[in-house]
Amino acid sequence: VLDTLRALVGADHVLVGADTQRYCDDWTGRYHGAARAVVRPAGTDECAGTVTACAEAGVPVVPQGGNTGLVGGSVPDSSGRAVIISTERMGAITVDVLAGQVTVGAGAVLSALQDALATTGWEFGVDLGARGSCTLGGMIATNAGGTRVLRYGSMRAQVIGVEAVLGDGSIVSRLDGLMKDNTGYDLGALLTGSEGTLGIVTAARLRLVPRPNARVTVLASLPSLADALALSARLRATVDGLDGIEAVLGDGINLVCQQAGLTAPFITSPAVTVLAEWAGAGDPPAAFVDAFVDLDHLVALDATTRERLWAYRERMTESISRVGMPHKLDVTLPFDRLAAFVDALSGATSPHRVYVFGHLGDGNLHVNVLGPSADDLSVDDRVLALVIEHGGSISAEHGVGRMKAHALGMQRTRSELAAFRAIKHALDPAGVMNPGVLLTDVNHDA
Amino acid sequence: VLDTLRALVGADHVLVGADTQRYCDDWTGRYHGAARAVVRPAGTDECAGTVTACAEAGVPVVPQGGNTGLVGGSVPDSSGRAVIISTERMGAITVDVLAGQVTVGAGAVLSALQDALATTGWEFGVDLGARGSCTLGGMIATNAGGTRVLRYGSMRAQVIGVEAVLGDGSIVSRLDGLMKDNTGYDLGALLTGSEGTLGIVTAARLRLVPRPNARVTVLASLPSLADALALSARLRATVDGLDGIEAVLGDGINLVCQQAGLTAPFITSPAVTVLAEWAGAGDPPAAFVDAFVDLDHLVALDATTRERLWAYRERMTESISRVGMPHKLDVTLPFDRLAAFVDALSGATSPHRVYVFGHLGDGNLHVNVLGPSADDLSVDDRVLALVIEHGGSISAEHGVGRMKAHALGMQRTRSELAAFRAIKHALDPAGVMNPGVLLTDVNHDA
Repeated sequence: VLDTLRALVGADHVLVGADTQRYCDDWTGRYHGAARAVVRPAGTDECAGTVTACAEAGVPVVPQGGNTGLVGGSVPDSSGRAVIISTERMGAITVDVLAGQVTVGAGAVLSALQDALATTGWEFGVDLGARGSCTLGGMIATNAGGTRVLRYGSMRAQVIGVEAVLGDGSIVSRLDGLMKDNTGYDLGALLTGSEGTLGIVTAARLRLVPRPNARVTVLASLPSLADALALSARLRATVDGLDGIEAVLGDGINLVCQQAGLTAPFITSPAVTVLAEWAGAGDPPAAFVDAFVDLDHLVALDATTRERLWAYRERMTESISRVGMPHKLDVTLPFDRLAAFVDALSGATSPHRVYVFGHLGDGNLHVNVLGPSADDLSVDDRVLALVIEHGGSISAEHGVGRMKAHALGMQRTRSELAAFRAIKHALDPAGVMNPGVLLTDVNHDA
Repeated sequence: VLDTLRALVGADHVLVGADTQRYCDDWTGRYHGAARAVVRPAGTDECAGTVTACAEAGVPVVPQGGNTGLVGGSVPDSSGRAVIISTERMGAITVDVLAGQVTVGAGAVLSALQDALATTGWEFGVDLGARGSCTLGGMIATNAGGTRVLRYGSMRAQVIGVEAVLGDGSIVSRLDGLMKDNTGYDLGALLTGSEGTLGIVTAARLRLVPRPNARVTVLASLPSLADALALSARLRATVDGLDGIEAVLGDGINLVCQQAGLTAPFITSPAVTVLAEWAGAGDPPAAFVDAFVDLDHLVALDATTRERLWAYRERMTESISRVGMPHKLDVTLPFDRLAAFVDALSGATSPHRVYVFGHLGDGNLHVNVLGPSADDLSVDDRVLALVIEHGGSISAEHGVGRMKAHALGMQRTRSELAAFRAIKHALDPAGVMNPGVLLTDVNHDA
């Protein structure tokens, strides 16, 4: 199969041996695989040829974008059987200012898109911490979320259409940018969040949003989680142009101050530290300003101050990593069960230390447990069981990957898993697309 | 099979003979079918039992909501073999004010949802003319669009999750309202727009949007379509809170004045009459106001005046029907090819009279051709070919149904049709769900 691939994409773009190493190690440091080769197609046709050759030979295919995933979905297993298809040579960005849309190659990096849009009057509706290395293709494959989901939705809401190679090597394409197009099933919506198990997205047409010319950020001290949730509900219901509602729970604010060298934002430590941001034209609506009147709060009207306020939230991850190797669980809770979940969390994780922060405005919490060894997943399972008990999702924005494939049945029913497997079989009949990711025990050949 | 169904849902809810008539006639008057029976399940479990019984007996199933579709997707063929499943008994509406979401039964009518939200501070992001009879389930099945797509997206963007019965009778359900949930393929996104060919949506969890407290509507006279498109692009790029950009092209404005008894809005007849609406808190942004300064325009700040301005656009359909039986084609054009398409339209439809109006802000035009007999579809095919030639979609918001199933291959490739059929086979293995709709020549049993 390697000779076929070399003929197809050129020998320079079929890497083997030590050259494959950096593609095989997950950046979280948790997943290490081995690959028969790394193939770097120049475009959709070469990608289709690669998938076809692999499917015919029964060789597993692992699609890889920026390799910044958090659930082990972008690296192969250790068997050395798989071919990694890297999208790194497919990074073109073409902005359509008239339509307010952009066509991107799957390998385009998010920050490159942000740079390309800087002077266009438009911006992209999804933003997240890995912006300097994550690719748009990977963000589609994992239905990436981030801080602005309450305003613009996740990646699926940005995708007007995709070009993709399905598991049988066939190409499907909707890059025409038509905002209304009801001609058949929406393969782009299905492929978004499918984690490379049905096909490889090679390009996409994405919607853009008008770039606001004003932005106001508030950091507020809330006396309880119930109060923070009430504030969040009030803001979501009354403020047009709300761009994000983030939160650091409990002692996390002290940790980030100590570890990142930040000044304590408030004289007394808040039960919940809430960061809310509005963006739009002119002044923020009165409803935004009024919501903070009776609270201790800090306001940022300029970029420097804004960055300072965001640091309390954005530097949580590194601050936690400095004091230990956390078990990270990315979960969503329904708003009306979120406080009860957090109450029960200390019991479920005892005697370990827990830091919780995340996207309060959409119910997505990042639970970080410090203490158990990396291999001891019992605390993970207890937290996920607690999430299910409270009607939440065991994977909010990171996806299922290899990490949670065994746990998918905790949340999705047998009927749903059967439907997933049937769809997988329909689009990836040889079962070669990212095996072991998202779905377990899928082997069409057997 | 009828005895089984009577035992399942009660004899009162299995209609036969003359009682089925009103479910068999399409409201457009174009499609007339015959049904073995109409079944009205009380909920998802009864619906699943009905589908299972039909699938086992090889009996075709036609899901039906408000029966307001425009492409013949909600009525059976004339063979009399099919069972219609009406969602009319599944109309519950439960608003979650805290979350800004609603759970609806598939049979809930759009206007009933609008009424239920009236005092909640929330509203629903999709609105369309059939609001008094179309159901939320049908709107999901057809990925309904309407006038607000440029702001909130189509139905797919409102669906957080669905409960549905798939073609094999299995139930899938995501009504938990989690805004971030990446646990497996998004069956709700796939079922949205699938026109009842994969399963029946029985309930859905939908997002709501904050209800604006101010609304400004402008009717403007534009000297050319190019100018109208430039205005539309400017508004989309600069105005936060833009709720709609509608247009009536050419002589249509005179027709609606004559037929609906409206006063001519401008002294000289515009080349394009544009209606733009902003909604939000307080006053509209300067960018909205400024865009109309150099144009003849009328402004509505109150509900009565707004209704008067909207009448020029909303009464186009009835005005056209008064002067003849139009061939209606619902198409989308890319913004940069839209004017060229309209230029070429008179040649393609000559010598017939053509009226064009629609949703300028998302490129969706409704082309109405007066003259050819109802059975003569040659002008339809010429218009659709012109759409394809200009990179557009032959079905914008109405769907494919029976009407355009033969034409789907004009736009979607063989690979895409093969993927559609594979997905259809995966979720509807017996091939009983709405046969003849969307896809032609699907017969898994053969």
